[in-house]
Amino acid sequence: MQQLKGIGASAGVAIAKAYRLEEPDLTVHQKDINDPETEVKRFEEAIHVSKQELEAIKEHALKELGQDKADIFSAHLLVLSDPELLNPVKDKITSDKVNAEFALKETATMFVTMFEAMDNEYMKERAADIRDVTKRVTGHLLGVDIPNPSMISEEVIIIAEDLTPSDTAQLNRQFVKGFATDIGGRTSHSAIMARSMEIPAVVGTKEATKTVKNNDLIIVDGISGDVIIHPSEDEVKAYQKKHEDYLAQKAEWAKLVDQPTVTKDGVHVELAANIGTPEDVKGVLENGGEAVGLYRTEFLYMGRDQLPTEEEQFDAYKTVLEKMEGKAVVVRTLDIGGDKELPYLQLPKEMNPFLGYRAIRLCLEEQEIFRTQLRALLRASTYGNLKIMFPMIATLSEFREAKAILLEEKEALVAAGTEVSDSIEIGMMVEIPSTAVIADQFAKEVDFFSIGTNDLIQYTMAADRMNERVSYLYQPYNPAILRLITLVIEAAHKEGKWVGMCGEMAGDEIAIPLLLGLGLDEFSMSATSILPARTQLSKLSKEEAASFKEHILSLSTTEEVVDFVKKTFQHN
Amino acid sequence: MQQLKGIGASAGVAIAKAYRLEEPDLTVHQKDINDPETEVKRFEEAIHVSKQELEAIKEHALKELGQDKADIFSAHLLVLSDPELLNPVKDKITSDKVNAEFALKETATMFVTMFEAMDNEYMKERAADIRDVTKRVTGHLLGVDIPNPSMISEEVIIIAEDLTPSDTAQLNRQFVKGFATDIGGRTSHSAIMARSMEIPAVVGTKEATKTVKNNDLIIVDGISGDVIIHPSEDEVKAYQKKHEDYLAQKAEWAKLVDQPTVTKDGVHVELAANIGTPEDVKGVLENGGEAVGLYRTEFLYMGRDQLPTEEEQFDAYKTVLEKMEGKAVVVRTLDIGGDKELPYLQLPKEMNPFLGYRAIRLCLEEQEIFRTQLRALLRASTYGNLKIMFPMIATLSEFREAKAILLEEKEALVAAGTEVSDSIEIGMMVEIPSTAVIADQFAKEVDFFSIGTNDLIQYTMAADRMNERVSYLYQPYNPAILRLITLVIEAAHKEGKWVGMCGEMAGDEIAIPLLLGLGLDEFSMSATSILPARTQLSKLSKEEAASFKEHILSLSTTEEVVDFVKKTFQHN
Repeated sequence: MQQLKGIGASAGVAIAKAYRLEEPDLTVHQKDINDPETEVKRFEEAIHVSKQELEAIKEHALKELGQDKADIFSAHLLVLSDPELLNPVKDKITSDKVNAEFALKETATMFVTMFEAMDNEYMKERAADIRDVTKRVTGHLLGVDIPNPSMISEEVIIIAEDLTPSDTAQLNRQFVKGFATDIGGRTSHSAIMARSMEIPAVVGTKEATKTVKNNDLIIVDGISGDVIIHPSEDEVKAYQKKHEDYLAQKAEWAKLVDQPTVTKDGVHVELAANIGTPEDVKGVLENGGEAVGLYRTEFLYMGRDQLPTEEEQFDAYKTVLEKMEGKAVVVRTLDIGGDKELPYLQLPKEMNPFLGYRAIRLCLEEQEIFRTQLRALLRASTYGNLKIMFPMIATLSEFREAKAILLEEKEALVAAGTEVSDSIEIGMMVEIPSTAVIADQFAKEVDFFSIGTNDLIQYTMAADRMNERVSYLYQPYNPAILRLITLVIEAAHKEGKWVGMCGEMAGDEIAIPLLLGLGLDEFSMSATSILPARTQLSKLSKEEAASFKEHILSLSTTEEVVDFVKKTFQHN
Repeated sequence: MQQLKGIGASAGVAIAKAYRLEEPDLTVHQKDINDPETEVKRFEEAIHVSKQELEAIKEHALKELGQDKADIFSAHLLVLSDPELLNPVKDKITSDKVNAEFALKETATMFVTMFEAMDNEYMKERAADIRDVTKRVTGHLLGVDIPNPSMISEEVIIIAEDLTPSDTAQLNRQFVKGFATDIGGRTSHSAIMARSMEIPAVVGTKEATKTVKNNDLIIVDGISGDVIIHPSEDEVKAYQKKHEDYLAQKAEWAKLVDQPTVTKDGVHVELAANIGTPEDVKGVLENGGEAVGLYRTEFLYMGRDQLPTEEEQFDAYKTVLEKMEGKAVVVRTLDIGGDKELPYLQLPKEMNPFLGYRAIRLCLEEQEIFRTQLRALLRASTYGNLKIMFPMIATLSEFREAKAILLEEKEALVAAGTEVSDSIEIGMMVEIPSTAVIADQFAKEVDFFSIGTNDLIQYTMAADRMNERVSYLYQPYNPAILRLITLVIEAAHKEGKWVGMCGEMAGDEIAIPLLLGLGLDEFSMSATSILPARTQLSKLSKEEAASFKEHILSLSTTEEVVDFVKKTFQHN
């Protein structure tokens, strides 16, 4: 038995075999060979095996992930049968007497470079196909395993350095029982993803990928943050018990599913959920969410070769609005750039992507992308209770410009006879310090604020939340953060506007009494946090929490705040 | 004649030949050769030419830059005579029948990798020498020019994509008459460096390196931001006139050199200068600086192979304190990391270095580096009026820890019988939004604040100030920034502490009336901005400027603030 300690990022216990998701080492060296004929055969054999593999993946993808994903693999299969690619490789092996890996690499690089240079979307996609296929064939030639996450067909726990959104898009949720990653914290994508999939996860173990081998039996305890490798039978039993206890507690929480969220002194606050796809709505309703407080639209743009059309977006937004049956749905417009890249948008490499060209900054520049999304939203608005908010607003001018574009598109649609709701609220994220500091100015022009604490904290403390070396500065309870939140809430209430919060902080046990006392109106969190939060709020008095506000805002360090909360609220 | 438009980053006009400072393309490809003997001769010839070149550079460095820099080139010459490196290259050419560049690259890489892997500082330095020398020889083999900036011996204007601190360390200030760079803004290192060297500079031209060739006659107009390539005789004359006018204006300003800085209504404010090296003090005094408001100690650590010793640092600090003759010298402790890397400190590559492990974060971790600097400062404290401040403080705990370490070192020195001043003020930079927001808490524990606007603006607006795409968000006059500055000043004054500002904003014509009105005590800027600022301040009334404070803080955009300042103060 071996044990790793990480950060419990999604509650629950999972026990299953490990599946390592890693970028294989496909470094190719040039080698002289003596027998070109045998080398050509070796190449043909690798092509053959790759084809068989792709056929299987394609079948599987069709069954489990749908036609769209399966089509990708059909395109790959076409490449593997294309004599225009294969013959030059064989010629090179024979004439230059070089190894197949090298001949393939040289030839493929030539085609990829040529296709990518063309001003033609179709050829650029072919370049991507060739690159993918070359990887697979090279893997076979080198005897290196290429992971096929879409092929997972038994219960596994994913082991990875980190999980990107596009990794997770390929996973079959039915079989993935948990995650353990080397890096990341509670607000990394892996963690957010695990909570949305409702599976246990431990992140930031530092060495899961160094320690765990494929097929090792492991336990992931997302409550304590432990990862157990090769557990004994007794340990497996003990953790199964822990898992059952957790399910029992969940069942207790579940009794509040159909209840409104009411504090001990009878005040209603709204508990909403953060979602990424229409499929997530199911979890929101099952967990008693009263609204969607943040619909991250980025996932619509990811894991694909081109921008989503207006129709595709319209369908997604309509589905979410309909499924929520009149409950509020706050849609955040595209927040791309930064750490979230899109292969079909050629964004410049930036030295500090978190301080760079992203979200509304990009949308105000690339207006066609922005306007397409806005039209899709406006058209979907009649199917439910839509609210729209803009991400990464830093100045009032940006908000005004974004809102003007939205109203322009609305007018154009109405003029063309399309029905658009007349009660769409238009708000913004508060995630950049400048907007919190002059929230009073913004409050006059927005319908609502949603505080994005993940970013707000990282900018206010000038510390990248993904960077382990400065993670001690990710301090949600720092008095500076609490004061900025207070500025926003007071400014909004003065103008009769409401304030939500959609960062991880909104579902945090220590933060909830603080935020209640500061007057937050809406708490938006991972769906699975809603019922524990509702339980906690039912035991808190808003009046009492508010009575500590002045004292809390006069504290000077995170530690003082946490001590005070524990001392004051722990017995409630 | 061709003209480029950039940002005037340092005033004045320069006319000289262009000198391109660029990283040469030394890509090496493997080639089969037929005649190894000739190839070995080609290699020996390249070695011979490189040696001659290095001898000349060494001579020159000894004369112009001192023994230290010359020693570097002696080490390089030793490498070029070392048969243990040369013979394997010749063997490889002969036995593998490959080109000399390739044989050299393979052999050098092997030695470098081997030496770097050794746990031995001396061998690591040898690896660096081999790398440098290989570059030079490869350049000769490929027929590519290697720039030798330390060899410049005629008047030139430097053309570069950007200038790093280590580039500028090699320049002979006597011959460099101006800069023109592709990227950067008013607060980039190139711009700051140009102002400290008091030479005209235009940054952000986007295409200077594409357009200007070596030895092109060019004009750099640091006032208007223009770069003229191949000027006509008339143009040269016109710009010479402009340069003379500028000198005349400077002479006008110079009359205020020995005057204190007093506003129209008789209030004294302190005008200080930012410096990087002891040599900069001359410029401070010549420009009438009343203090050093920011001594950036990073330059002591740059352009060298190892950390500076306590003695070297002591000498530098003592020199500055003595030269300033009792005037205040505010020393900022080491702000390294981020975009400022040190070759001998193995810092991890970070995704967002501006939000990463740097400055006080690094110093609290690598305490020996920090303590060495503090001891040097404490020992130098008796030679003048020393104030110490810590950079990148985000939390009160960090400030307390840094201060405790300083006091520990002080006690140890005193216990050992070393004399240390008893009146050293201990302060901090305010450059992270969190510290501005809870400045009232910090004000109880610091002796002074110095607002670092360059970083404060970039974090408050969440926009990398080096990133052209989001440079529109670098807004010193944004009401959010002005409010944060106000919070800091009010909090400090309530506790009887003073507030300085050492960002570029402090010397800015639009900002000066605003800052005067907000109550800023000390303005620290490029030495060359002091006299214009003193002239401007002598025409402003502090009482009048303060009367607009409430109105200014109620504005909502940068544009409104700028309009107001122009309307209100332009005729003063």
